[in-house]
Amino acid sequence: MEPTGLWLIGARGSVATTAIAGLLALRAKAVQPTGCVSALPQFSGVWLPGWDDLHVGGHDIAEIALDKRAELLAESGIIPHRVFEAVRQSLSDVDGQLRQGYHPATNPGSQADAARRLADDIGEFAARHGLARVVVINVSSTEPVFPVLPEHATLQALEAAMAVPGRTVLPPSSVAAYAALRAGCPFVDFTPSTGIRLPALEELAAQQGLPYAGSDGKTGETLVRSTLAPMFAARALRVRSWSGTNLLGGGDGLTLADAEHAGSKLASKGRGLATLLGSEVTAPLHIDNVPDLGEQKIAWDHVSFEGFLGARMSLQFTWSGYDSALAAPLVLDLARFTAAAHRAGRAGPLGALGFFFKDPWGTGEHRLAEQFTALASWAESL
Amino acid sequence: MEPTGLWLIGARGSVATTAIAGLLALRAKAVQPTGCVSALPQFSGVWLPGWDDLHVGGHDIAEIALDKRAELLAESGIIPHRVFEAVRQSLSDVDGQLRQGYHPATNPGSQADAARRLADDIGEFAARHGLARVVVINVSSTEPVFPVLPEHATLQALEAAMAVPGRTVLPPSSVAAYAALRAGCPFVDFTPSTGIRLPALEELAAQQGLPYAGSDGKTGETLVRSTLAPMFAARALRVRSWSGTNLLGGGDGLTLADAEHAGSKLASKGRGLATLLGSEVTAPLHIDNVPDLGEQKIAWDHVSFEGFLGARMSLQFTWSGYDSALAAPLVLDLARFTAAAHRAGRAGPLGALGFFFKDPWGTGEHRLAEQFTALASWAESL
Amino acid sequence: MEPTGLWLIGARGSVATTAIAGLLALRAKAVQPTGCVSALPQFSGVWLPGWDDLHVGGHDIAEIALDKRAELLAESGIIPHRVFEAVRQSLSDVDGQLRQGYHPATNPGSQADAARRLADDIGEFAARHGLARVVVINVSSTEPVFPVLPEHATLQALEAAMAVPGRTVLPPSSVAAYAALRAGCPFVDFTPSTGIRLPALEELAAQQGLPYAGSDGKTGETLVRSTLAPMFAARALRVRSWSGTNLLGGGDGLTLADAEHAGSKLASKGRGLATLLGSEVTAPLHIDNVPDLGEQKIAWDHVSFEGFLGARMSLQFTWSGYDSALAAPLVLDLARFTAAAHRAGRAGPLGALGFFFKDPWGTGEHRLAEQFTALASWAESL
Amino acid sequence: MEPTGLWLIGARGSVATTAIAGLLALRAKAVQPTGCVSALPQFSGVWLPGWDDLHVGGHDIAEIALDKRAELLAESGIIPHRVFEAVRQSLSDVDGQLRQGYHPATNPGSQADAARRLADDIGEFAARHGLARVVVINVSSTEPVFPVLPEHATLQALEAAMAVPGRTVLPPSSVAAYAALRAGCPFVDFTPSTGIRLPALEELAAQQGLPYAGSDGKTGETLVRSTLAPMFAARALRVRSWSGTNLLGGGDGLTLADAEHAGSKLASKGRGLATLLGSEVTAPLHIDNVPDLGEQKIAWDHVSFEGFLGARMSLQFTWSGYDSALAAPLVLDLARFTAAAHRAGRAGPLGALGFFFKDPWGTGEHRLAEQFTALASWAESL
Repeated sequence: MEPTGLWLIGARGSVATTAIAGLLALRAKAVQPTGCVSALPQFSGVWLPGWDDLHVGGHDIAEIALDKRAELLAESGIIPHRVFEAVRQSLSDVDGQLRQGYHPATNPGSQADAARRLADDIGEFAARHGLARVVVINVSSTEPVFPVLPEHATLQALEAAMAVPGRTVLPPSSVAAYAALRAGCPFVDFTPSTGIRLPALEELAAQQGLPYAGSDGKTGETLVRSTLAPMFAARALRVRSWSGTNLLGGGDGLTLADAEHAGSKLASKGRGLATLLGSEVTAPLHIDNVPDLGEQKIAWDHVSFEGFLGARMSLQFTWSGYDSALAAPLVLDLARFTAAAHRAGRAGPLGALGFFFKDPWGTGEHRLAEQFTALASWAESL
Repeated sequence: MEPTGLWLIGARGSVATTAIAGLLALRAKAVQPTGCVSALPQFSGVWLPGWDDLHVGGHDIAEIALDKRAELLAESGIIPHRVFEAVRQSLSDVDGQLRQGYHPATNPGSQADAARRLADDIGEFAARHGLARVVVINVSSTEPVFPVLPEHATLQALEAAMAVPGRTVLPPSSVAAYAALRAGCPFVDFTPSTGIRLPALEELAAQQGLPYAGSDGKTGETLVRSTLAPMFAARALRVRSWSGTNLLGGGDGLTLADAEHAGSKLASKGRGLATLLGSEVTAPLHIDNVPDLGEQKIAWDHVSFEGFLGARMSLQFTWSGYDSALAAPLVLDLARFTAAAHRAGRAGPLGALGFFFKDPWGTGEHRLAEQFTALASWAESL
Repeated sequence: MEPTGLWLIGARGSVATTAIAGLLALRAKAVQPTGCVSALPQFSGVWLPGWDDLHVGGHDIAEIALDKRAELLAESGIIPHRVFEAVRQSLSDVDGQLRQGYHPATNPGSQADAARRLADDIGEFAARHGLARVVVINVSSTEPVFPVLPEHATLQALEAAMAVPGRTVLPPSSVAAYAALRAGCPFVDFTPSTGIRLPALEELAAQQGLPYAGSDGKTGETLVRSTLAPMFAARALRVRSWSGTNLLGGGDGLTLADAEHAGSKLASKGRGLATLLGSEVTAPLHIDNVPDLGEQKIAWDHVSFEGFLGARMSLQFTWSGYDSALAAPLVLDLARFTAAAHRAGRAGPLGALGFFFKDPWGTGEHRLAEQFTALASWAESL
Repeated sequence: MEPTGLWLIGARGSVATTAIAGLLALRAKAVQPTGCVSALPQFSGVWLPGWDDLHVGGHDIAEIALDKRAELLAESGIIPHRVFEAVRQSLSDVDGQLRQGYHPATNPGSQADAARRLADDIGEFAARHGLARVVVINVSSTEPVFPVLPEHATLQALEAAMAVPGRTVLPPSSVAAYAALRAGCPFVDFTPSTGIRLPALEELAAQQGLPYAGSDGKTGETLVRSTLAPMFAARALRVRSWSGTNLLGGGDGLTLADAEHAGSKLASKGRGLATLLGSEVTAPLHIDNVPDLGEQKIAWDHVSFEGFLGARMSLQFTWSGYDSALAAPLVLDLARFTAAAHRAGRAGPLGALGFFFKDPWGTGEHRLAEQFTALASWAESL
């Protein structure tokens, strides 16, 4: 098989650490691939890099050692103790592949220089391991909404602005996307941050002939919504309101409950619902920071709907999950599927990967069942 | 268009009364077809009898007048007062089309005689209105499980036994199915009762070249289950237990909570879940009679599942609906689709109508999204 | 018995209309006093005005006739049709007792003049019916938070400011409270608006020797919270977070979801929780306007708590009620209990009525069970 | 202080092991007494044996070492790893105090002999540690319902029957109660088994002048019910149905879901509800064995109630707890309070401890708030 790189932006975060520990545990046959879509029988005939073929590196602005980070996750119950013990040493090895990430506050030079440095890190990683390709996946914290600037319109204008020392024309996620593309790597955005979603960066992706996918991993409330909403549509039941509350602990709770940050997340959640139901509905949505929940993520949704002769009925659900446990296997799936797409010469937004995202690019399909069917037939076509 | 008959077994029950009142209200343009699948844009190009083309008759062993029954439903909020007022007179007219149903306790003669009388009722109804066809739909109360008898194996053996005076070789639902087939009518079973599901009756259906569909309308908990279960499968999440409790009032609660009766209903609910998840799971299920709920039907499900690295998570939902409001539009849909199938010369079990049933015949597909896709493409093929 | 007046501020609103229709129905023996605390056997030995002794009048700025308003509530299911029919005529009679309420926008003169007019209305009502006393209860819409002004500090300063034409020194609820006190009437605030809660008005109440009670009727989420929170305390379980979401339709949803208005409501909800649990907890709280719910009011609370050896556990509840049906009987209770207190010569804040309020005056007790015990022994003492 | 014994029947079970590990951890100051009612400030002035004064022994028919059992609970998350490490050695020491329990299948002799042996074990334990008193608490698995026999009527008849070799006139819980009383020890029943609840044993307790308490620890659904039901009563709301489902894993799930065993548990749950609400309600109740839940215990209750003018409303709650974590601190509380009662010379059923039980003896009070008040004033009176 071909050795394949997985380069994580935010490599020391909960999602990344869980994904890395899980990959190492899968490689050590210490766990089953529960939660890994790419390990389903449906994809057994598709070329995908094996667990042994995936090499992990990444950027982060945090400096905590990966094994230390994993130990904290073991204490909070996300990584079982025996799994942590089984992979502790290999985590240390992966830690040696991680490089200092980019943040404007700590990088006083030009964003062009910063991007060059990031791209070089990825290039060296690829060379060091003799990798056929490297998939770059952004799993860092959600950024505040970044203003639209005229320089985002074309690659030429963008690169001119990036060259100005001290000028912050891009948010960190977009600098990372730029660096990935310049390094010849497919880019996947698991967050709702800006990332590659700028005309200038799409131009660069096209120029480089690279595929990309996103955005915002669909791991909880939206996963259930994209499953349930089509039921109402198929049964001609009229949804009158769909109210949601999300309780999040951990860093995500803090980041997302902040009004400014929540802007991007709430927007990507809301967009899907209207599409799924075929019309706008009253849909109040909240994200609350509840620190004591830790990695736990609880969502309550109340759907009020109308049936025959105007009968008023309701469905409510409570989802109680662990964010990293839900996201991590999808990160591995995305690495594998995107690698396969790159190998098959696909370029542009990978609509077939919409199955994984709240705000899927390259497709208007939000219904989970249809997304899965599309994913399966696309995978076969590679 | 072709005038089409809808003959309801249990025509004075809540579901039938709501379906009839709703049909009359649709015809009077007093309501929207909310909850009617056949009225979705997806089926606008398919030949289906219009609301004006459907003529209703039926059998029941109860004697309450249909408009009186509808008035009770109006008082309990199932039929809005203004709708009831709009259709009260037409309900009286339909009441004139209803005939005395069959029950062993009140029919001391042979079941052959009883079936002949039922078939004649349907035949006269068809003649009276110049109907192109009559679809017979069973919406009567769920029967206790009926023992398997050797006489059920072939049509010849069955008819010999039916001819014996005083012998009860078939439950009422199967007598109704036999009569429908003998009258040349497609038969649909909206209940989990035995109905047409006997080799002898399938033989008769085949001999008559008639289509049939069933069984057990999917209107609540199972509807949600068949929507949600595929999500877990598609995401490679391992469901460890799926527990359910149903609170029902009205006659249904009384009938189904009874251990013997519940047998058939619980069995048809359980069958789907294992199929949907691809393996057996712990799945305790209860149906409780809670009279004060009236027509309301509340289901609580708790799903315990495992994700990446063994993470233990859960999803719970509470469904609160009105049984008749959920079932009635589907009865109209089934009349229309089955009529279209009969017109197109289809015979045997209509697997494409599995979308409507807990225990679908003629197909192994239980996933709602896939069932809807199958229904749509089948309808187009007619 | 002594004829007693109940004067409602916001007399044409949902709560008032339901309370009036209910009182008339009780008088007509058309309904049971379900939801009326004062009708419990515990209070059978206490002097309370009977249903026949209560005469209703009130102020409102809306002009819809009371029987028309009640008809709308009958259509939305709050008042049963048969009850509406039974009281329709008497509602019309009560409508004749209602007078134009005060709102700054429509009263260009001084607030002193406005208050005098309001007090006169009440006085004439009392005289017309030969009432022993009139209890004034505010059930109007929640007001935006009103700024604290220096003139609120003393009665003298306040009355001086009120005399200035065009000057708005008080919100409408406080003008109503002032008028009530000037008319010699006890004042009860069922809303979280400012009302009597100003030093100057408390001074006036003391001067007049009048009792008063409030504030903010405890009818849903807070009712359950004040019941459940003591359980955690009594069992030494440590509540770590208590998150709440309220979905409201109707006018209340619109008023309360508005950030400015919600200020006062959220504050009165939050105050109790910390008191009940004995310490501050993370307690995010939302009030959403979901118009399709109409009079329905749905609250979801998620309590995360810690037990022995740090075990992490949770309790969640969903409350689904009808606001007016919950509030209306308490309005009648408050009229009766406050009348009894006035008759017994009580003055100042009636802490024993804290049982009825989210933000009880004159007591620090928020625990429902203890509040009920206190109410019962106070009532006996009258 | 006076050294006090706590003798546990079922000393190697989950509840006992958690209680013992917790006691050792409290003694080592490794944890806070969260969940321990007796550690609340309300009881700081009451004489109670301190954590250091409690010595633990017990009977069990299982043979797994206590530290091994605790390790399993640590793996399933009930006992935190660091707590387990801190008490591992002391657990081994307690294990040395445990003796073989009684079970008819393994004790072919007379029940009199068996009881004598059990009493001797307790006596030796008391002598070994110089204990002022020993409180015997039954925390073993719930027994099947045992038939009522004429020999249960008097102590004399019972002892005559117990002397017959091979005769099983008592269930194991009652043999344990008899042995405790004969050894001069107060007896507490944390289970719904027969235990001391036989005229003959009550006679013995009276003769010995011993206090006793029970039965069936109130740790989950019933705890919430006894908190919420009084709210409906105090607000004059009419509960129409109260439906419950319990999902249990672990040994308890297996034991209780069994129809025969569940008999005693369901009965003790149901008794309280009718008392709390003041009248019978429809109250279907289920206990399901869901092994994957392990120590987790999930209860869902749906309460349908009626308010003013017949408004139909509902409250539902989901309780998700860990059985042993909820029960264990109460076992320590009961040891302390019962020791104090014995020291104060109290005899007979301790109604004031009803706060801890689903089926409280010696009191008709089921309301949690009132039970807490009664407990506090009783404790002060000692």
